[in-house]
Amino acid sequence: MSEFRKDPITGRQVIVAPHRAQRPRELGVTNNRSPAAPCPFCAGNEALTPPEIWAMRKAPTQPNNPRWSVRVVPNKYPALIQSNPWSRNSDSFYDSQNGVGAHEVIVESPDHVTSLSALGVEQLTDVMGAYHQRMGALRSDPDFRYLLLYKNQGDRAGATLEHIHSQLIALPFVPAEAASELSGADTHYKLTGRCIYCEIIERERREGTRLVLDHEMFIAFCPYAPRFAYETWLIPKIHAAIFEESTQRDLPAFGRALHDTLARIDKALDDPPFNYFIHSLPTALTASPHYHWHLEILPQLSRAAGFELGSGAYINSVAPEDAARLLRDALL
Amino acid sequence: MSEFRKDPITGRQVIVAPHRAQRPRELGVTNNRSPAAPCPFCAGNEALTPPEIWAMRKAPTQPNNPRWSVRVVPNKYPALIQSNPWSRNSDSFYDSQNGVGAHEVIVESPDHVTSLSALGVEQLTDVMGAYHQRMGALRSDPDFRYLLLYKNQGDRAGATLEHIHSQLIALPFVPAEAASELSGADTHYKLTGRCIYCEIIERERREGTRLVLDHEMFIAFCPYAPRFAYETWLIPKIHAAIFEESTQRDLPAFGRALHDTLARIDKALDDPPFNYFIHSLPTALTASPHYHWHLEILPQLSRAAGFELGSGAYINSVAPEDAARLLRDALL
Repeated sequence: MSEFRKDPITGRQVIVAPHRAQRPRELGVTNNRSPAAPCPFCAGNEALTPPEIWAMRKAPTQPNNPRWSVRVVPNKYPALIQSNPWSRNSDSFYDSQNGVGAHEVIVESPDHVTSLSALGVEQLTDVMGAYHQRMGALRSDPDFRYLLLYKNQGDRAGATLEHIHSQLIALPFVPAEAASELSGADTHYKLTGRCIYCEIIERERREGTRLVLDHEMFIAFCPYAPRFAYETWLIPKIHAAIFEESTQRDLPAFGRALHDTLARIDKALDDPPFNYFIHSLPTALTASPHYHWHLEILPQLSRAAGFELGSGAYINSVAPEDAARLLRDALL
Repeated sequence: MSEFRKDPITGRQVIVAPHRAQRPRELGVTNNRSPAAPCPFCAGNEALTPPEIWAMRKAPTQPNNPRWSVRVVPNKYPALIQSNPWSRNSDSFYDSQNGVGAHEVIVESPDHVTSLSALGVEQLTDVMGAYHQRMGALRSDPDFRYLLLYKNQGDRAGATLEHIHSQLIALPFVPAEAASELSGADTHYKLTGRCIYCEIIERERREGTRLVLDHEMFIAFCPYAPRFAYETWLIPKIHAAIFEESTQRDLPAFGRALHDTLARIDKALDDPPFNYFIHSLPTALTASPHYHWHLEILPQLSRAAGFELGSGAYINSVAPEDAARLLRDALL
């Protein structure tokens, strides 16, 4: 059973989840699946995962059988569990509550693919459709306040299984990073009456130095103050606060833009390990004039270490203008 | 030339330092020093570093010559430079300023030692003395607002050279993590009239479940809401806000407590990679009744990945009560 604990000084939230120590390759132990052991995410091995929550099937096959294109299952070692009874344990100093939430895994290909950019645009659009479906479904659960869709690709980016997959965690609170963005965007809106993300899009398209691609519906760019070398954000050009409200026209365009961006990153940097996540509006809020959903890609070529952990600031040895130039030219 | 850049949405500070890309093993490239190349931190190789800033010498030898016990040199690839002229470049949206600051390296042994716990208590006390001396010296520079002393030990914790060393960065602002601690401690003090760290010490000593060691002057404990497995904090029992004001009696006691703590971590976890840092009061402030200096040790057995980067919350698969028990029993 996991629990949320709050640091009494900073309010930082930690999920203490002891059962996760049983995961393959947790805690520096080398992957304890023997190389011959079957991959639980490959089609045909559906029995190796918990029963599926949802799948995109091109043919009318039964759940937990092959012939799916994207498959969503509960995390076998969940950080949070939906059916946990809510309970709080607080003595006015140390505060904890039960680990109520959801923790799903989106398996992004039936084949043993290890790099998302290897997928065709059609399959990648199916993957975006799965994100959209699951975030939409969890959004309506009143127990949850925030949904975080994230990916770890590559050992050095924290992936414990190499078959491409993303994860979706539903939290009963709005976490610090999201709260910080929302608060900054709100302040900017109050001062200027404008969405700060819309202003960034306008400015990046006008200046061009940090722009990676400019499609009909999305742009990708290296942000002005990136934490990591080659950090790249993907954002819809038309103002939209909630990813889950994307239309059937948005998803293929999102798939194309993501494919183009990842192909550039993989070509320029030789398939680097990376993390990405979608930041969308907290579930309790509806249309927002000041927030704008987006996806942040963080290549993990060097790692956040003592300075970053101790300060909360970052040292980045690649200027975003240089990174964007390399990514723009990568497919020439 | 490096610069500070501020993210316009969250205010997150980034140091963009392109010259650092030339470091050995930066950006995932394997250490490009050949194995036969001399280590720049070993005694006898003083000419391979920039001229020393300070050294503890047991014999009256000349600077930049052997027979030192701890040696402090400028970082060869500094993130910040002290002599940079201060200048700010802001268009009211994107804000940057010159990378003014200091970036020093404390070489912690004249011999090619790769684990801090291998040092004897006397040498470790000399190392603490070097931290104390350099932080004290930089504290009086009015250009700086915050000093961060930090260590990366082991490749997986971000060390680019294996010979034990720490780094000291002086910043012209109080960074987010320090600001968050100060603000939380200040709020607690206003509400209760007490230092929150003193309360934590009292409580951890009374409960004992998260206590690792209880020396005459210091305790080590696993904090209630730890970001990482086996995270351990070391803190003086008597209220003191500023590490640099430690007395000649404190430093040997600090050396003994750190030695005991690291010996337990290394024994229990088989010399894990780790980061540590000292959090002390910002330089502009003097005696503070609400803040309390301390050292945080963060073993890097699993890494912060997509969830942590996207949310600012952490998933930790080892409860601090279990971690503390293992560390308490490690030397039995």
